[in-house]
Amino acid sequence: MPRRALLRFASAEQAQTAFYQAFEQADALAMMQVWAEDEEVICVHPGAERLVGTAQVRESWRQMFEAGPKLHFELAQVHTLAGRTSTVYNLCERIRVDGDLRVHAVLATNVFLLTPGGWRMVMHHASPLPRGSEGSDSITGTVH
Amino acid sequence: MPRRALLRFASAEQAQTAFYQAFEQADALAMMQVWAEDEEVICVHPGAERLVGTAQVRESWRQMFEAGPKLHFELAQVHTLAGRTSTVYNLCERIRVDGDLRVHAVLATNVFLLTPGGWRMVMHHASPLPRGSEGSDSITGTVH
Repeated sequence: MPRRALLRFASAEQAQTAFYQAFEQADALAMMQVWAEDEEVICVHPGAERLVGTAQVRESWRQMFEAGPKLHFELAQVHTLAGRTSTVYNLCERIRVDGDLRVHAVLATNVFLLTPGGWRMVMHHASPLPRGSEGSDSITGTVH
Repeated sequence: MPRRALLRFASAEQAQTAFYQAFEQADALAMMQVWAEDEEVICVHPGAERLVGTAQVRESWRQMFEAGPKLHFELAQVHTLAGRTSTVYNLCERIRVDGDLRVHAVLATNVFLLTPGGWRMVMHHASPLPRGSEGSDSITGTVH
């Protein structure tokens, strides 16, 4: 497999944009360039168990992207807690599955840290939003 | 209502301890001393809508504590991302409802910032853990 140039994100916002691009493109290599290489990174997909450490997180994206289908994201109601070396986003993901017009609403907390290698994701905690709440006209809950 | 001395937390850990004490004691005044006074604070109870800003957050705790019942917390598998002015905890809450031996498992991301008034909570994002995962011997999901 060809080795890609290592990306370096100059801001948490750039890193978060790359996270959702990798998610939409189902690109596991690009996804793992967003994450910090650390035994303490944490990833919680909606309704699923907590994954801890780079190895578990990498494997979860690999499996998800292999299984398909492709997802399309619209981000809404983004709240930002920005510090000098850390940024926390809390936002609503409006998700459409390829070939399906329904929208699934998920609430995500994304945490980014400024590392020696630029801004990297260290936590993604996603959970389904209840029916009829913000961000969705048709909510079924457990997609991504 | 008697006015209490304003608490000042010297660390994120102290503030988080006070958060769970106020939760167990169903003490809305003590709970709101843990939170930053800010229009950007965010609170997500498991399976519920996102609450934004001090007024919404205060009202949610008031209603929850008035409705009862009392809850007992055991915290497990605490992961910490600590910075100079912000700390993020991700942990498993094992919750028992007063008079009930079952344990409900909830995953929480708690974010604390160092403010001019000491360490304060700015985000609580809680979601149910799936049955049979870490932190619980009998998981039903949607308590607190």
